[in-house]
Amino acid sequence: MYVVKSPLADADLKTVSEALQGALVDLVDLSLAGKQIHWNIVGPRFRSVHLQLDEVVASARTHSDTVAERASALGIPPDGRASTVASGSGIKTTPSGWIKDGDAVGAMVDALGAVIGRMRERVRATAEPDPVTQDIFIRITADLEKHHWMFQAENA
Amino acid sequence: MYVVKSPLADADLKTVSEALQGALVDLVDLSLAGKQIHWNIVGPRFRSVHLQLDEVVASARTHSDTVAERASALGIPPDGRASTVASGSGIKTTPSGWIKDGDAVGAMVDALGAVIGRMRERVRATAEPDPVTQDIFIRITADLEKHHWMFQAENA
Amino acid sequence: MYVVKSPLADADLKTVSEALQGALVDLVDLSLAGKQIHWNIVGPRFRSVHLQLDEVVASARTHSDTVAERASALGIPPDGRASTVASGSGIKTTPSGWIKDGDAVGAMVDALGAVIGRMRERVRATAEPDPVTQDIFIRITADLEKHHWMFQAENA
Amino acid sequence: MYVVKSPLADADLKTVSEALQGALVDLVDLSLAGKQIHWNIVGPRFRSVHLQLDEVVASARTHSDTVAERASALGIPPDGRASTVASGSGIKTTPSGWIKDGDAVGAMVDALGAVIGRMRERVRATAEPDPVTQDIFIRITADLEKHHWMFQAENA
Amino acid sequence: MYVVKSPLADADLKTVSEALQGALVDLVDLSLAGKQIHWNIVGPRFRSVHLQLDEVVASARTHSDTVAERASALGIPPDGRASTVASGSGIKTTPSGWIKDGDAVGAMVDALGAVIGRMRERVRATAEPDPVTQDIFIRITADLEKHHWMFQAENA
Amino acid sequence: MYVVKSPLADADLKTVSEALQGALVDLVDLSLAGKQIHWNIVGPRFRSVHLQLDEVVASARTHSDTVAERASALGIPPDGRASTVASGSGIKTTPSGWIKDGDAVGAMVDALGAVIGRMRERVRATAEPDPVTQDIFIRITADLEKHHWMFQAENA
Amino acid sequence: MYVVKSPLADADLKTVSEALQGALVDLVDLSLAGKQIHWNIVGPRFRSVHLQLDEVVASARTHSDTVAERASALGIPPDGRASTVASGSGIKTTPSGWIKDGDAVGAMVDALGAVIGRMRERVRATAEPDPVTQDIFIRITADLEKHHWMFQAENA
Amino acid sequence: MYVVKSPLADADLKTVSEALQGALVDLVDLSLAGKQIHWNIVGPRFRSVHLQLDEVVASARTHSDTVAERASALGIPPDGRASTVASGSGIKTTPSGWIKDGDAVGAMVDALGAVIGRMRERVRATAEPDPVTQDIFIRITADLEKHHWMFQAENA
Amino acid sequence: MYVVKSPLADADLKTVSEALQGALVDLVDLSLAGKQIHWNIVGPRFRSVHLQLDEVVASARTHSDTVAERASALGIPPDGRASTVASGSGIKTTPSGWIKDGDAVGAMVDALGAVIGRMRERVRATAEPDPVTQDIFIRITADLEKHHWMFQAENA
Amino acid sequence: MYVVKSPLADADLKTVSEALQGALVDLVDLSLAGKQIHWNIVGPRFRSVHLQLDEVVASARTHSDTVAERASALGIPPDGRASTVASGSGIKTTPSGWIKDGDAVGAMVDALGAVIGRMRERVRATAEPDPVTQDIFIRITADLEKHHWMFQAENA
Amino acid sequence: MYVVKSPLADADLKTVSEALQGALVDLVDLSLAGKQIHWNIVGPRFRSVHLQLDEVVASARTHSDTVAERASALGIPPDGRASTVASGSGIKTTPSGWIKDGDAVGAMVDALGAVIGRMRERVRATAEPDPVTQDIFIRITADLEKHHWMFQAENA
Amino acid sequence: MYVVKSPLADADLKTVSEALQGALVDLVDLSLAGKQIHWNIVGPRFRSVHLQLDEVVASARTHSDTVAERASALGIPPDGRASTVASGSGIKTTPSGWIKDGDAVGAMVDALGAVIGRMRERVRATAEPDPVTQDIFIRITADLEKHHWMFQAENA
Repeated sequence: MYVVKSPLADADLKTVSEALQGALVDLVDLSLAGKQIHWNIVGPRFRSVHLQLDEVVASARTHSDTVAERASALGIPPDGRASTVASGSGIKTTPSGWIKDGDAVGAMVDALGAVIGRMRERVRATAEPDPVTQDIFIRITADLEKHHWMFQAENA
Repeated sequence: MYVVKSPLADADLKTVSEALQGALVDLVDLSLAGKQIHWNIVGPRFRSVHLQLDEVVASARTHSDTVAERASALGIPPDGRASTVASGSGIKTTPSGWIKDGDAVGAMVDALGAVIGRMRERVRATAEPDPVTQDIFIRITADLEKHHWMFQAENA
Repeated sequence: MYVVKSPLADADLKTVSEALQGALVDLVDLSLAGKQIHWNIVGPRFRSVHLQLDEVVASARTHSDTVAERASALGIPPDGRASTVASGSGIKTTPSGWIKDGDAVGAMVDALGAVIGRMRERVRATAEPDPVTQDIFIRITADLEKHHWMFQAENA
Repeated sequence: MYVVKSPLADADLKTVSEALQGALVDLVDLSLAGKQIHWNIVGPRFRSVHLQLDEVVASARTHSDTVAERASALGIPPDGRASTVASGSGIKTTPSGWIKDGDAVGAMVDALGAVIGRMRERVRATAEPDPVTQDIFIRITADLEKHHWMFQAENA
Repeated sequence: MYVVKSPLADADLKTVSEALQGALVDLVDLSLAGKQIHWNIVGPRFRSVHLQLDEVVASARTHSDTVAERASALGIPPDGRASTVASGSGIKTTPSGWIKDGDAVGAMVDALGAVIGRMRERVRATAEPDPVTQDIFIRITADLEKHHWMFQAENA
Repeated sequence: MYVVKSPLADADLKTVSEALQGALVDLVDLSLAGKQIHWNIVGPRFRSVHLQLDEVVASARTHSDTVAERASALGIPPDGRASTVASGSGIKTTPSGWIKDGDAVGAMVDALGAVIGRMRERVRATAEPDPVTQDIFIRITADLEKHHWMFQAENA
Repeated sequence: MYVVKSPLADADLKTVSEALQGALVDLVDLSLAGKQIHWNIVGPRFRSVHLQLDEVVASARTHSDTVAERASALGIPPDGRASTVASGSGIKTTPSGWIKDGDAVGAMVDALGAVIGRMRERVRATAEPDPVTQDIFIRITADLEKHHWMFQAENA
Repeated sequence: MYVVKSPLADADLKTVSEALQGALVDLVDLSLAGKQIHWNIVGPRFRSVHLQLDEVVASARTHSDTVAERASALGIPPDGRASTVASGSGIKTTPSGWIKDGDAVGAMVDALGAVIGRMRERVRATAEPDPVTQDIFIRITADLEKHHWMFQAENA
Repeated sequence: MYVVKSPLADADLKTVSEALQGALVDLVDLSLAGKQIHWNIVGPRFRSVHLQLDEVVASARTHSDTVAERASALGIPPDGRASTVASGSGIKTTPSGWIKDGDAVGAMVDALGAVIGRMRERVRATAEPDPVTQDIFIRITADLEKHHWMFQAENA
Repeated sequence: MYVVKSPLADADLKTVSEALQGALVDLVDLSLAGKQIHWNIVGPRFRSVHLQLDEVVASARTHSDTVAERASALGIPPDGRASTVASGSGIKTTPSGWIKDGDAVGAMVDALGAVIGRMRERVRATAEPDPVTQDIFIRITADLEKHHWMFQAENA
Repeated sequence: MYVVKSPLADADLKTVSEALQGALVDLVDLSLAGKQIHWNIVGPRFRSVHLQLDEVVASARTHSDTVAERASALGIPPDGRASTVASGSGIKTTPSGWIKDGDAVGAMVDALGAVIGRMRERVRATAEPDPVTQDIFIRITADLEKHHWMFQAENA
Repeated sequence: MYVVKSPLADADLKTVSEALQGALVDLVDLSLAGKQIHWNIVGPRFRSVHLQLDEVVASARTHSDTVAERASALGIPPDGRASTVASGSGIKTTPSGWIKDGDAVGAMVDALGAVIGRMRERVRATAEPDPVTQDIFIRITADLEKHHWMFQAENA
């Protein structure tokens, strides 16, 4: 059932739908991974990285909301439940237990790198079928790449 | 390894540790379930419930942070990762796809009811080993029961 | 009819219910008494006490809302109507007409003292049946005793 | 005793005094009735009306303060105690216990209608003896009639 | 006369100019239609839709300002007068008089749908001649489609 | 159909109704005219008048909302649609295209003068049938006359 | 020379003009007298009255601005220069040097009483020629009478 | 009588006392002159200078308060009454009636120049007897010289 | 002399009194020690720890105020003077002079650990005689243990 | 050395890198030129243009930060040092000394025109290699063109 | 060891160092004394003086931070520990236990007087060796003398 | 040409003029150097120093504005253009490319040290000719020395 009438043709809608659902799962998992490390980090850089992680979490939460509501606006019911996230995320398993600050930064570099790679795919995939959705992905990518730089600079 | 020296005896620590980890999983899942329904709800009460759900999400996020940092403060590394949440949550499966407003309210009544039941257990279990942790659970329970009333009043 | 499903057993609910209804009546009356004196006070300390009374009124209004919504959250419909307050309040009759500043302070010491006495009873009565409600009473008592001290210090 | 020297002649003062005291009682009762329904309302429109009622309560509290301080400014000690309100209010008895949303709206339409009718009388009565007081009643009436429209529109 | 020197070639300017003027007229009319319904809506969902409409009006006003100033920045004097709006808007006649809440929502779904259809045309038309203007249309479309979804969800 | 029960007698209602509908049309047009000139003004005083015009627009929007909601509160459905405004406004046609700063100021002096003249009529007309509505017109007139002075002083 | 075209007939303008100029002088002097006492007060009530006086000064400054700009809006150049104020004020000479708190309060009761008496005259005088100006005087009078009451209550 | 015990020797106190009293009179008159021109200015630069004058008035009011309270802190009762200001100010008579914008700017250049000249004298005079007071004069001079530059730049 | 009438029995009052006075001394010293290290810390983590210490200081100041006012509210005059703090604090001597960042963190771990140990004693001691005071100690302990964890994590 | 791993291929990176470095230099120089004229402008429009220039400076500073951090995010160390700016800016030499308001506006029209021309080149150049960077240039261009219009309108 | 390279010669540094350390001790003790009396004051002026004392405490805390960080900036490790304050303060012993409002004011007059006397010495002593530090002392002195006046005025 | 009439004699003006122009160049370069390092820093202390540098930039921008406007206020046109800064700054060349955190801190210590040395010269040079300008330099020096300490402490 399409509750919301989509302004897109069916073929376009399919492409855009997969891109949005994939982005949603990645972004929700990014927020969970960020919090996980925020709580478990130890080491001399504890406070600095602890605070920096909350900025990533805030970004990821805002972006996931934008993406999910974009899906709804196009007539696609988004799925951001824990099990969907656990099985479909592009982030490889976040480590459990205490984590040293250098490793914490490394884990975030990896997680952000994985999401950015997939997000750039989505920018390409949606250019034709829906430039409005593409614009959202472009801005999210810009923001994630900024976080990515900062964590890389931390470990340089 | 205990990075943080706990002020509690080992037996007490075990009880408190399980209570905190359980509460963390419930609260993270509550925030994900709240968002899931926030994005998928339809029907005449859409706007009202859509806004109300974001207040539950905000509460659940704040409480999950308090609980996880309490665990860390006691020397227990908290685990709030997607897979841990997916397998351990006290909330039964959140429905996927569009959801009518009445059903959305019903789903939240059930989810909150499940979490409150387990939270009251934790209030009892931690009274003796750590009144500081218990006080945190008491305040979270009061807040969740207020949300619970409001959703019940919605469907009365 | 129980609109809201209570997490408490029936006997416990009865005790908690009476405590909450009694507290509501006391706090609404405290807000009315505070305003009454706020408007009618005269004397050299007029401005100082006039402002201080509005802080008591603000406290009493906030606490009465917390108490009434706690009752609702437990499935008990609260009653804060003028006639219920007029007949059930623990505050003895507030004087009418202009009131000298010293007498105004004295009237507030008495009013707060009466409410605090009854509130401490409620802390004791609810400890067993519902520690969540008790915690609310404990925090209200702490706040009222702070106001009580300040008015006593005024007339020392 | 006249603590405050009134700028009005005695006959005028009597008229204005009765109008102000009557308005005070009505407005305090409106704030209590608004809260009573705010706490006890149930039904699908719960949240929307619950919030709307708090706006009426805020209006009524602000207006009652303006009216009472106007009385004091004219040398008339105002009386806003629970028993005075219970016996003198123009609002018919507010229902107790849970109240369905449609009935809640209806009760507010009646309460506001009753107060507006009396307030328009006071606008007429004070035009000659004190245009300053009349201006206060005019602005209160405009605000109450706006709330009145909104509740009527709710039940249309 | 070109007061402001345009950075665009003449052919491009013509295309962009028509797109901007058309968008301006649609957006001004959307703000007027939104207010018209905001004032005339009745029914149980009155308050919720009444508030939601003011968010559409705020969006439409902001977007119309952005579009008109973009026209000026390109050397095109914008025209947002009542008669121009009345004759050129893409929104079909807004109904007059009281309007039931369900019909109000339906009218907004239609109005937003009409404007979105034309706005997507403008996104396509301006891609080549002026990507700066296109970017503005893309962001406006995203926002309007979000409002569109919400009103559709309301009537689902 | 009267959705909202009017507190006025029928003859009074007719007078007040015409005054409110006329004021609404004038004020909506004033906001559109102010924006039109805000976007098209050129000349050395550009920035100063550009900003000043937005203050007139803000005033006109606020007043039109007050007037329309007053109409609704009296049971009169207000009409602020583009075509109604285009045909019924008291402002003579606003010029199109770029406009020199001195002419822009002159156009606003004329527009405000026209609206003020009609508004003072409405103050007189509503004095008897509804002093509450009259009070709203009085306050709007005071504000418009202040803007009128400022534009006249600009061109002195 | 009339820079600003007045909406009033000449005879009316003369009455209103005198009322506005008189009010301006009284209000500027009230702000200077309030500051004079604010700086020179001594005694146990120093802090309380010191702060209260700044509220009178803030009121008087706001009202003097409203009155002077109303005069300008009617085409009457206002005169608020020190010498004009010194010679024309309705307040009798403010005392110089240190002033005991009780005397400070008494001086303000007298100053406010003098200004209120003259302001009520102006309310009467402007009712017919300009209800817009009258409304401004009514609101100023209400505010001054509130301050008057408070200082009287201080010395009761 | 010395209510406040001065930390200065008698000879020093006399010098500092005269400097503070003179500065107070100049600054109060500057605030009155600024407002006088703020209300009476006409011409194309009306709005710009009208706003700029309010910044001078705000500065002058703040500085006069600082200076008067400094006098009190040294045991010198300040005198800022209208008649004292009218007879002792260093600003030559402010013009009455409408004033063209260029003349308005010129009048402020003169007024500020006069006050600055006297203030620099006071900086010199107080260097030895009280560096604390001197520091206050230095900061006031810096601020007045900034305003002075701006008005001179306006008329360049 | 008991200025404030205590709601506690004499034996209970003695226990609670000692707990409150002890907590006050510990918390004031914690704020002084935090500032001391805030000013003297050097090393690569300077900025991060410098900022973190101000959060401890802010916490300690807020808690010391709560504790002291609770003592007053129970009729016990609190003593927070420098000499009382110097002789009675539970924190061992804070080092003087420049302090390396790692040592600074270590000093705070020790200071917080000492205060937490004593605070948990107070939680136990006051449970019976005054649950209101106990609740204050519980919340302070939760906050201190959170700071304690963070400093431990810094040095892990 | 590449500290930050770039998501772009080498050829693309070269194009994007030159565009970002060029934009950085232009934007830093725009902020310096804006401040230079902000400080040196004289003439009747002094205040208006003085304030307007600070808005350009604020824009230029924000955009230069965005551009430089985008470079870093792509692994390109940005260079915004004074000598690099002095030699590489696209703005022709800013005049020194006092500058009349009309000339000041003209200088800004030229400076903005020069930067806009180069920025539109960059929009074209980066479309293919990096749409994320292009999006940043598009938004900066829109903002600069708005400032450009305003200065042109000033001198019309 | 000098961690921070001082811009002052050794002899100058010694003078400035002693002045800063002395000022730090006085200001920390002033903040403790202010709080001590804030908590223990009783009498009719309780509320007024209670609030006023918190303003002194806030001033003293801010100034002590400024002074300590100035010391650090000059390479002097500041010492603000409880025992250093207890033994080196210029304030004579603050009384313990309840204190009547008049005595409280007197105690503050004495404490402020003592600190001001020593601070004026420091202004003199640092004029030559470091005008930057002197400027800080001058501003602190001005602020303390303002508080001093106010407490003296209270007891006049 | 002197647009602005200087309150200083010619010889004094020359000294003050050179001091202000020199300070301006140093402060603008400090803001550019701060940003350069802010963008290029890498290493474990990245985030901490990255944020700290923005505080230096904010200080430098505010101080450069104060200094340039002080020059204008004295009739001296300030010169803050890129080429003037590049050739006249007291800061030795800022390094280009990525910079390790320790080196970044060292570069700021050097840059601040160089500017402070020159600023202390200006404090001496302007003491006689213009104490108002000197006071500005004193406050800037205090602020720069605080930043200097913090960076030195970072590298201790």
